[in-house]
Amino acid sequence: MNSEIIKKMVRKPSAWVDPKGPFAEIVFSSRIRFARNIQGHKFSISSTENEKKILFDELTEDITAIELFKDGYVLRMEDLSSIEKEFLVERHLVSFDLCFESDMGGAIIDKNERVSIMINEEDHLRIQGFADGLQMFEVFDFLNLVDDEIGARASYSYDKDFGYLTACPTNIGTGMRASALVHLPALVITREIEKIIRKLKTKRVLVRGLYGEGTDIKGNFFQLSSSASLGKSEENIISIVTEIVKEIVEKERNARETLMKNAQMQIEDKIWRAYGLFKYARLLTSDEAINLSSALRLGVGLGVIRDVALKQLNKLLVYIQPAHLQLVYERKMDNYERDRMRARFVKEILSLDSKGSNDG
Amino acid sequence: MNSEIIKKMVRKPSAWVDPKGPFAEIVFSSRIRFARNIQGHKFSISSTENEKKILFDELTEDITAIELFKDGYVLRMEDLSSIEKEFLVERHLVSFDLCFESDMGGAIIDKNERVSIMINEEDHLRIQGFADGLQMFEVFDFLNLVDDEIGARASYSYDKDFGYLTACPTNIGTGMRASALVHLPALVITREIEKIIRKLKTKRVLVRGLYGEGTDIKGNFFQLSSSASLGKSEENIISIVTEIVKEIVEKERNARETLMKNAQMQIEDKIWRAYGLFKYARLLTSDEAINLSSALRLGVGLGVIRDVALKQLNKLLVYIQPAHLQLVYERKMDNYERDRMRARFVKEILSLDSKGSNDG
Repeated sequence: MNSEIIKKMVRKPSAWVDPKGPFAEIVFSSRIRFARNIQGHKFSISSTENEKKILFDELTEDITAIELFKDGYVLRMEDLSSIEKEFLVERHLVSFDLCFESDMGGAIIDKNERVSIMINEEDHLRIQGFADGLQMFEVFDFLNLVDDEIGARASYSYDKDFGYLTACPTNIGTGMRASALVHLPALVITREIEKIIRKLKTKRVLVRGLYGEGTDIKGNFFQLSSSASLGKSEENIISIVTEIVKEIVEKERNARETLMKNAQMQIEDKIWRAYGLFKYARLLTSDEAINLSSALRLGVGLGVIRDVALKQLNKLLVYIQPAHLQLVYERKMDNYERDRMRARFVKEILSLDSKGSNDG
Repeated sequence: MNSEIIKKMVRKPSAWVDPKGPFAEIVFSSRIRFARNIQGHKFSISSTENEKKILFDELTEDITAIELFKDGYVLRMEDLSSIEKEFLVERHLVSFDLCFESDMGGAIIDKNERVSIMINEEDHLRIQGFADGLQMFEVFDFLNLVDDEIGARASYSYDKDFGYLTACPTNIGTGMRASALVHLPALVITREIEKIIRKLKTKRVLVRGLYGEGTDIKGNFFQLSSSASLGKSEENIISIVTEIVKEIVEKERNARETLMKNAQMQIEDKIWRAYGLFKYARLLTSDEAINLSSALRLGVGLGVIRDVALKQLNKLLVYIQPAHLQLVYERKMDNYERDRMRARFVKEILSLDSKGSNDG
């Protein structure tokens, strides 16, 4: 049952991979999550597997009753293979901790993958919403409706002075985090990025890599996240993050203009080389694919590359990951085999049919 | 007059760039030169500019009387610009020393550029012959005829015990050097090359780089040359060099087979990447172009690349050089501009018309 769901998900990228939102050529995605806990239940860290199971079943009943999730997916960690769990992590739908801390964790996801609710993670509920481009308020409004519907069925732990009570004290209050994944190649090339990151830190914005907490900056992707103390209310936090992202988008656009004025040929060279390598390479590591996709993304943004769409590049970033590749090709692969199939699948995603590309 | 000749030469590659000789996928070219001096004239090093001029005029009269050179080119260094001289050096038709030591140097070249005779180089005459592939004896036989015809008109300095007398004692005797330019990518990848070079040195074979004496090994091209003491007679030297080259060709072929057996995908990846970069790069340094052409050459040899011919790769190696590029485009170019035009011209030579490649 769970495997059938995963198979279905593998065939179809999350809806927000198709970018229609504002600034989508620079802002890959907007994400918001609420941390919620349920009255009368111990925090996950101190509850038994059995208590977790009881809570899971209760919450699943409450959540699947909501219209949005009626044709959605309910996934229990105990029913998933390692590779299926990794797949969900790669898609940002669940956290690594949810997958490997307890068998009684799980997630409920709507069929467009716009909302994913983790159950029995660090908090009883982590309600997450995703959108393409810069759409913080849109995600927030939608997530609020979901949150209200759940809150009407389950009793949240809430204190009128402190706000939502969470397992980790840093989340107490709104229990919210707003993040944007932004692509800033021009700011990296012009080295302005260093100053920007220093400034963001003073503003209490966290800066992380492409694949979340503790990951390196790759492919010039930066994940900017609000810390709890960024603003007082949810709306306040979201408008601060939105403003910051808009400012950075503006800076990136200016840097792109400067580059095209001063080093157009070098930039176009970099972009077209990436195109040529995607089209002809027979082996691609994950890191190289991310870096090449960064150059190509810049090329699409600058109008240099016209036969590749952002949607394809978004899909590429998701599907070049190990679990995605293995589930697409329905077999276990070692590193070498993944590099081979990655090089092949990238051509398919980008519709780069080179005369010789299938000779190998 | 001289400039018109150079323009004509720029438009047409040397005949031997079109490879029809044996082992042409591994042996780029066979070259032989005779060092000759004329009785009653001081060696170049101790003669005055005026004495050199007299000798040049005498020898030009003798040589242009030979059928082969009747529709050939007579080039005097004093009439050539620096860039035109560099062009001739890049084409291996004359030496750097000939160009920049004296104004009274010059060269007589047949219109197919199979024979180039330098006048007033280190020796009064350096008679050089070129062919594609491994064709030592063919070049030698042809060059012998030319040598005999010149010897019938001018009196060579010859000693019945020592042989031909030359400016540098190491050339005394046959005055001959036989060289082959070989492409050994598989032996480089498998690291067998190091042992082979050590062994060649014990056999008194000189190993040098692509562009002759004192140059680095680039693009896996090795120039193997006989030293004077390699053999006793001309035929003896040539058969030794021919055998050595055949052995190395065999080793390279075996190494290619081994690579295709053990690392086919990695090799094909390297080849197709080179293809992709040639097709899409907007800027190419000379070194990168040489290295990419090496990979592509291997690809052609292995049958991986089917739409590029050796002839095109040979032409590429000649025309990516600075003077060639500037004379093709008929203007002075700085480094950056050369990289730009090199990337463009390479696409033309290889007929790699990529959709986007002329956008820049």
